[in-house]
Amino acid sequence: MIKGGSVGGTGYTGVELLRLLAQHPQVTLSAITSRGEAGTAVSDMFPSLRGRVDIQFEDPSAANLKRCDVVFFATPNGIAMQQAPALLEAGVRVIDLAADFRISDIAEWEKWYGMQHGCPAWVEQAVYGLPEINREKIRSAQLIANPGCYPTAVQLGFMPLIEAGVVDVAHLIADSKSGVSGAGRKAETHILFSEASDNFKAYGVAGHRHLPEIRQGLSLMAGATVGLTFVPHLTPLIRGIHATLYARITKEADFQGLFESRYAQESFVDVLPPKSHPETRSVRSSNMCRIAVHRPQGGETLVVLSVIDNLVKGAAGQAVQNMNIMFGIDETTGLWQLPVLP
Amino acid sequence: MIKGGSVGGTGYTGVELLRLLAQHPQVTLSAITSRGEAGTAVSDMFPSLRGRVDIQFEDPSAANLKRCDVVFFATPNGIAMQQAPALLEAGVRVIDLAADFRISDIAEWEKWYGMQHGCPAWVEQAVYGLPEINREKIRSAQLIANPGCYPTAVQLGFMPLIEAGVVDVAHLIADSKSGVSGAGRKAETHILFSEASDNFKAYGVAGHRHLPEIRQGLSLMAGATVGLTFVPHLTPLIRGIHATLYARITKEADFQGLFESRYAQESFVDVLPPKSHPETRSVRSSNMCRIAVHRPQGGETLVVLSVIDNLVKGAAGQAVQNMNIMFGIDETTGLWQLPVLP
Amino acid sequence: MIKGGSVGGTGYTGVELLRLLAQHPQVTLSAITSRGEAGTAVSDMFPSLRGRVDIQFEDPSAANLKRCDVVFFATPNGIAMQQAPALLEAGVRVIDLAADFRISDIAEWEKWYGMQHGCPAWVEQAVYGLPEINREKIRSAQLIANPGCYPTAVQLGFMPLIEAGVVDVAHLIADSKSGVSGAGRKAETHILFSEASDNFKAYGVAGHRHLPEIRQGLSLMAGATVGLTFVPHLTPLIRGIHATLYARITKEADFQGLFESRYAQESFVDVLPPKSHPETRSVRSSNMCRIAVHRPQGGETLVVLSVIDNLVKGAAGQAVQNMNIMFGIDETTGLWQLPVLP
Amino acid sequence: MIKGGSVGGTGYTGVELLRLLAQHPQVTLSAITSRGEAGTAVSDMFPSLRGRVDIQFEDPSAANLKRCDVVFFATPNGIAMQQAPALLEAGVRVIDLAADFRISDIAEWEKWYGMQHGCPAWVEQAVYGLPEINREKIRSAQLIANPGCYPTAVQLGFMPLIEAGVVDVAHLIADSKSGVSGAGRKAETHILFSEASDNFKAYGVAGHRHLPEIRQGLSLMAGATVGLTFVPHLTPLIRGIHATLYARITKEADFQGLFESRYAQESFVDVLPPKSHPETRSVRSSNMCRIAVHRPQGGETLVVLSVIDNLVKGAAGQAVQNMNIMFGIDETTGLWQLPVLP
Repeated sequence: MIKGGSVGGTGYTGVELLRLLAQHPQVTLSAITSRGEAGTAVSDMFPSLRGRVDIQFEDPSAANLKRCDVVFFATPNGIAMQQAPALLEAGVRVIDLAADFRISDIAEWEKWYGMQHGCPAWVEQAVYGLPEINREKIRSAQLIANPGCYPTAVQLGFMPLIEAGVVDVAHLIADSKSGVSGAGRKAETHILFSEASDNFKAYGVAGHRHLPEIRQGLSLMAGATVGLTFVPHLTPLIRGIHATLYARITKEADFQGLFESRYAQESFVDVLPPKSHPETRSVRSSNMCRIAVHRPQGGETLVVLSVIDNLVKGAAGQAVQNMNIMFGIDETTGLWQLPVLP
Repeated sequence: MIKGGSVGGTGYTGVELLRLLAQHPQVTLSAITSRGEAGTAVSDMFPSLRGRVDIQFEDPSAANLKRCDVVFFATPNGIAMQQAPALLEAGVRVIDLAADFRISDIAEWEKWYGMQHGCPAWVEQAVYGLPEINREKIRSAQLIANPGCYPTAVQLGFMPLIEAGVVDVAHLIADSKSGVSGAGRKAETHILFSEASDNFKAYGVAGHRHLPEIRQGLSLMAGATVGLTFVPHLTPLIRGIHATLYARITKEADFQGLFESRYAQESFVDVLPPKSHPETRSVRSSNMCRIAVHRPQGGETLVVLSVIDNLVKGAAGQAVQNMNIMFGIDETTGLWQLPVLP
Repeated sequence: MIKGGSVGGTGYTGVELLRLLAQHPQVTLSAITSRGEAGTAVSDMFPSLRGRVDIQFEDPSAANLKRCDVVFFATPNGIAMQQAPALLEAGVRVIDLAADFRISDIAEWEKWYGMQHGCPAWVEQAVYGLPEINREKIRSAQLIANPGCYPTAVQLGFMPLIEAGVVDVAHLIADSKSGVSGAGRKAETHILFSEASDNFKAYGVAGHRHLPEIRQGLSLMAGATVGLTFVPHLTPLIRGIHATLYARITKEADFQGLFESRYAQESFVDVLPPKSHPETRSVRSSNMCRIAVHRPQGGETLVVLSVIDNLVKGAAGQAVQNMNIMFGIDETTGLWQLPVLP
Repeated sequence: MIKGGSVGGTGYTGVELLRLLAQHPQVTLSAITSRGEAGTAVSDMFPSLRGRVDIQFEDPSAANLKRCDVVFFATPNGIAMQQAPALLEAGVRVIDLAADFRISDIAEWEKWYGMQHGCPAWVEQAVYGLPEINREKIRSAQLIANPGCYPTAVQLGFMPLIEAGVVDVAHLIADSKSGVSGAGRKAETHILFSEASDNFKAYGVAGHRHLPEIRQGLSLMAGATVGLTFVPHLTPLIRGIHATLYARITKEADFQGLFESRYAQESFVDVLPPKSHPETRSVRSSNMCRIAVHRPQGGETLVVLSVIDNLVKGAAGQAVQNMNIMFGIDETTGLWQLPVLP
């Protein structure tokens, strides 16, 4: 059994991680810390876990996370970079679900996240945890930078086209829509039910923190800096990301075939038949990404539709997938629940 | 392995049954029939099942359901009473998720369901599949009448009080609220998104088909005919039933204790601590029923709050629970997924 | 033209009041105050008002509210009792949309609202602003205690039965459901979209602040202290209250007729034909209350269904209705917009 | 007073038209026809209209629509082209809210709408009723082709850029999201609450009927055939369209200024300040279109955000706006209600 710990766990990413770990046959959840909720039973905060998760939140100082085999950081940005190094140095493997280790260019990271980075050295050693591209590196990684939700959906959608060199990478467009849980479990007015329900809006058009992360990933695939217009939108659903991607064709190819062959061996990427329209609910509460590729009117522009559950493949599920790879167990272990539909 | 079959499966109860059976470690899904969808792959209709359920809907005449150990009817009312007898006579065990075998008084059934009953003889032999009250009979039953969704939530909520004889059973009130999936996957105007969303209403106040079913169950508990006012409401959520129950106290007792002791051995009934308010999402996609009992202002009226997922404990999950009992396997097998929250 | 002012206006009651006043043909909105938002243009906070409401929030100290004919308090509880007296003494008429003047028993008020009352003397002079019962007193009132949302729906639903003396007033039940806007525009976790959406729950079963207000109103109608069980629920819609009321018949009568004759002259109470089920959306964004009365199965218990928009008839609309009565103009002025459906 | 009639009126466009006409101070609603609902009181079908709209649906043959000054067709596609000519020849002015007269190229229309056109001659005389571009022609038009919902949002969003010749019109992208009421009030499975709620998906990527309509409009602005990729999405809100538009800059300009000056005189187009993100709810139930223009990261691609209420500016409201223009009354008459927020 893998001894797992979690720093943080009162947000949506955290409770989702608990849901997955509690059902994982090869993990024992040893410790979970929360500065604000120390002493509270986890199932008092999340009654869905009653009778199944019987641990309490502990004060970070009390919790002996160093005894864990792996520690997840389900914390706000800026925490893992402070607390992870001590664990890493003690030999614990760390998976950070926040953004602290995702951007290799420290100056870029500091610009977008508005703080000084606490441990640039570990950024260099961190492996970006997108298994579909970094599986081999993940196996032996000590520190995983778990990808963001938008970046997962967008990178998986563009990957086959960029790797095959068949589209204009200087002018990519990612029109992305997220459910409200992507904004976290924070007491903020704009994500109140009465604000976000029966409403639709774009946000962060001038620049969103996931832009540099996506651009970095796509540029690595392309072998050159890509040009990307990224527009996120808030849509009234709890879970789900739908990325609608636009790319100009530069070279004819069997586009459907490119996707199918690229993902033939992937357990968590499902390429739909031609003319399909994946729905977010078809992946709800599961670790699956479903993708369809279209060429409307036989024109010059390809349209890729990519859906994930932002809390699973876009966060906690991908973290568990990374853990499975790191510990050499079947990648789908504990992640094989079917989507909940309707 | 238990060989399972399903008659019907294109509605919400059906797809939920497929979701549960596909993840059940001791069931092989052998056949599923649908007159209208014969030849369609199940996963083409429900993309959430892609890659995991690879059978097709078959024409009822072609499907050799008699080879199954158990056949579920996830059909409209009136179908099982026509088709189940042949299977039953062939020794197949049958679980009807519709209402055909729920009401022992045939005349009463015919009044509420507006048709003549096709096999009154089997009604007599059917066991009402509420495990918390009929577990022993279920073990050996050949035919299970799986309870309705409202009846499950209401009966579990009233049961400890009625069995203990501490409330006035002549004037019970069940104010019940259901998510829209309870109305089924039928192309009807009143359950369109633009009608049912951002809207709340009562319906069927003059009389709803679940009234005689609940009244029958409560009367059996009470040993006398109960008086019940049952008001169902349609509420804008997909899954979930919340029953708010009112009963006048006739005898003082430790009401919280009554609930706790009555359900102490039940895997799927969770009695919350005093002063709790169960939320429907705390049981979403799970087979759990969560209950709280209140005595507001220390007055004469008890208020019981009972929540279930109408498609799981209120339909397909309870059917699987019944199957587990019938085949002597652990009652929680295949039903142990944690609720999806948020 | 009536010169109107508003203290507060950044919550949902406030923006709804602005929407109604901005369209009222006989009101000029002279001043609106907000400590936190002084200097902000109202339409920057609520873009729905762009181009139509061009005033700014002012600091309370700067705003010369004493020049107004009427001042609305759309503030949290406890503010009006501090600030209204100075205006009242200056001859300004005041309509408090909060609860400061609703309960005539000061000790009771202090118990439920957890603070000491700041001006008990004015409580005595305040008129409870439910026009359907207090219209004459409202005409000459200087201070209106505008009713709460649940109290409006529940009192209008019970009124004809209690006034006619045909039901058991010792055991009334009000099972009430509210849209989330009723909880206000506060940054609190439990009303986040991801918490309140696709979810249903009761709350405050032990005791809710609207209980004493409703009990006071019903007791005045009954001429005796009534017994009331009041259970509020949070339902995933933005606007709307649906009260399901239960009362035991003590005297036979033409119940439908009682409702129709009681409300025959009321512009904002619509009694539906027998067997109707009013929907919350049928009053969305309007000042209408729609009511239906049922006697299920011809039994002893009456069921009344009463719906309002909590922000209109349950708050800002009723405040404007009160203002119209106070200033002797047609009661429907500025309140005649049709409900928005779908 | 203008005597108005409506053919059809049982769909969402129809009930919205009734809501607007019933509140219009210069219109008398004389007749409304419906083959299926003849004899039903309009307010029995739509209880929001109770007490305010007291006419019945009439059989088309019985209704003397020829006595009307203006007749609206709120019918499925293909009806107006059959029935409007007789009215037009009788001198009645007609506003078709369906698509029969929108596309001037008959062959193109027949390809997309899958039927033969019934009166090509009138297509030539019809005026496309987008007031912001065709106001002068609308004044004297006898037949108005009222624009589609997506076409309204997309054309208003691109118009200033295309007219100014500053973007590459060969590669325009319109990523558009619609509330579910845009799909109409039809009993179809995919728009059930339990399907469309908590879900997001694209549809019609291969080709949607609004594509030729938008392309025609944009091409007229550009003076050349434009290239357009149009991807519609279904989003879980009742009302609202959000178009996110992408265009490559070909010529530097003050883009914000282009929008502001283009729409300076328009009552129903509101250009937001730089860096704004219009929300669909900011126009809910109103005839307003709100637009913001962005140039993310100072790059080559402009992003325009354009929101309307699909049932108002995208259908019935625009029809009333056209009527106002046709009859020489103030364009905002009857359309000046403020958006309902929250």
